[in-house]
Amino acid sequence: MAAAWLSSRGAESYVSPMELIQPVAWSAGGSGVRILDQRQLPSREVYRDLHTIDDVCDAIRTLAVRGAPAIGIAGAMGLTLALNGADAGGDARASVASAAERIRVTRPTAVNLTWALDRMLSVVVAPGNGAPVRDTLRHALRAEATRILDEDRNMCRRMGEHGAALIPDGARVLTHCNAGALATGGMGTALAAVYVAVEQGKRVHVFVDETRPLLQGSRLTAWELGRAGIPATVLVDSAAAALMRAGEVDLCLVGADRIAANGDVANKIGTYGLAIVARHHGVPFYVVAPTSTFDQSAASGDHIVIEHRPADEIRCGFGVSTTPAGADVFNPAFDVTPASLVTAIVSDRALHRPPFDFSHGR
Amino acid sequence: MAAAWLSSRGAESYVSPMELIQPVAWSAGGSGVRILDQRQLPSREVYRDLHTIDDVCDAIRTLAVRGAPAIGIAGAMGLTLALNGADAGGDARASVASAAERIRVTRPTAVNLTWALDRMLSVVVAPGNGAPVRDTLRHALRAEATRILDEDRNMCRRMGEHGAALIPDGARVLTHCNAGALATGGMGTALAAVYVAVEQGKRVHVFVDETRPLLQGSRLTAWELGRAGIPATVLVDSAAAALMRAGEVDLCLVGADRIAANGDVANKIGTYGLAIVARHHGVPFYVVAPTSTFDQSAASGDHIVIEHRPADEIRCGFGVSTTPAGADVFNPAFDVTPASLVTAIVSDRALHRPPFDFSHGR
Repeated sequence: MAAAWLSSRGAESYVSPMELIQPVAWSAGGSGVRILDQRQLPSREVYRDLHTIDDVCDAIRTLAVRGAPAIGIAGAMGLTLALNGADAGGDARASVASAAERIRVTRPTAVNLTWALDRMLSVVVAPGNGAPVRDTLRHALRAEATRILDEDRNMCRRMGEHGAALIPDGARVLTHCNAGALATGGMGTALAAVYVAVEQGKRVHVFVDETRPLLQGSRLTAWELGRAGIPATVLVDSAAAALMRAGEVDLCLVGADRIAANGDVANKIGTYGLAIVARHHGVPFYVVAPTSTFDQSAASGDHIVIEHRPADEIRCGFGVSTTPAGADVFNPAFDVTPASLVTAIVSDRALHRPPFDFSHGR
Repeated sequence: MAAAWLSSRGAESYVSPMELIQPVAWSAGGSGVRILDQRQLPSREVYRDLHTIDDVCDAIRTLAVRGAPAIGIAGAMGLTLALNGADAGGDARASVASAAERIRVTRPTAVNLTWALDRMLSVVVAPGNGAPVRDTLRHALRAEATRILDEDRNMCRRMGEHGAALIPDGARVLTHCNAGALATGGMGTALAAVYVAVEQGKRVHVFVDETRPLLQGSRLTAWELGRAGIPATVLVDSAAAALMRAGEVDLCLVGADRIAANGDVANKIGTYGLAIVARHHGVPFYVVAPTSTFDQSAASGDHIVIEHRPADEIRCGFGVSTTPAGADVFNPAFDVTPASLVTAIVSDRALHRPPFDFSHGR
């Protein structure tokens, strides 16, 4: 089994995802926010321009843009639209504050969204920026959103460098969901470690959980790795245990939507089961996330709100009805992996080993 | 969470699946074998008549009929078609023997198919049945296939009775794939335990893993439980761990495609991971299977051949391309759960507790 996979390895065809993939950007001309509509991948690479706060909320809620860091960036950049066209009028500060609250509630679990919006709001109330001159405020908000994007890009690179140290040459990495360039402003979180390892000349093969119900693994991660020229193999989520039992997985690398003060990790549904299975097989389980994902206000995972999504994501997620009409469905978008199952957490600041203490990390 | 599910429980609307579901039967008029085409569930309930050995092989290979016991029954009943129409001619015994080998290789993992075909072949060579009178042989084969079907029906009932003893009133059962009436000649294996428990007046709620890639859980188990009036909730396979962590699962019940002499269990991909997760949460993990599933010739799971199925089951299993073209795929149909993770095995003969010894069980 390994032989076939090994033979296809090699970084000869590697292209940095930074040259290829930008999930959120300013629109040409600067009047809006341009996103890559991830709902249409891998079949079509479609970009959409968002012009209103409604557009932004809809894009985040429907997962046209997704991934905790990218949601934060889209929220921050999108907030600047509160001062444009249909959303303009009235008191500028009030418009921005009200738009921020509308964006904030679109997805409850990723803390990056709230973190980014709070940073933007701190600009609104900063001395000098509260002037009734709408253009001054717009300029300050655009500058802050651009800083958030640029910082995320730099954080991705630093996470990649910390994480690459965990990946030996010839490693077979298993990942879940999409924690790559498509999920961030840069080269990703978990996948940044893979990209940097490949840039360092290491051979890496990535096993990709398809990640039901919305298939961010098979649709997005496999697409992104393919674009970057990194060999990858897709499997159904439930096959990960058999793959580990066959000795084919050297380490797991996943992202995070929120990390509590004690190291409990909220991430895409299935992460927790994967962590249990990894522990059972003695496979190291690493979480890679920027400091904007750390929530010191949540003492443990019990304090993290888990989003439950519509039943139809499971009942007919592919345009085909695959479940009897009216069947009851349990569809949490995320689960919580207790810190005890996490080998280490990689942030842009450091490689954190248990017992986790992030109080100096922000 | 529990409250909502509990309130919907109750056996008031229960209808025995024996009155509703027959996945394999003799065609009206007796000229063929009638199957319920399970590829079309839950959208359409379509029956097809098989008239040739090619039809039988195709139905088994493409999963129109599936489930280890049902495959054995379809193979046995289908074998009688070797003496019909296009498959007739030449030496009757040789026709049957050659047809049996064609059917045998359609699916390698379920031992029931080989077991049923060997029983049928023993009829062919039995004294008195080898007469060159084709009708005599056909009659004997039909009688043996009918016996296999009837025995399976009775075995299901007995498995149900042994298994129901494991299900307390108010139990929340998690199952994987389809081990119900659709998989057998009777009321199922794992689900037989649920059906008998409900007949005994117990309230049972069933959580159903959707079971990627072919969704036998959401398409078949949820359909079958719905027809029987038993409350059920569908979840993606990777959500089982979160459900257990929430304390919502009292026991797991799954079927088996082959059980080795030491108690290792080959079953649908995902069973092994589920067993690990159940053990992690202290949830009992029960396997329910007829004695025809026990393979004393396999000392352990290492001796069980695991079928790998086409990549397109994962890449575009719903008529929609969900993975980049050309992506590499790992698609084993089954995995092996070591006996050490199995709380008990329920057969038609007994409730087997570890250390497993089935040498007196056949």
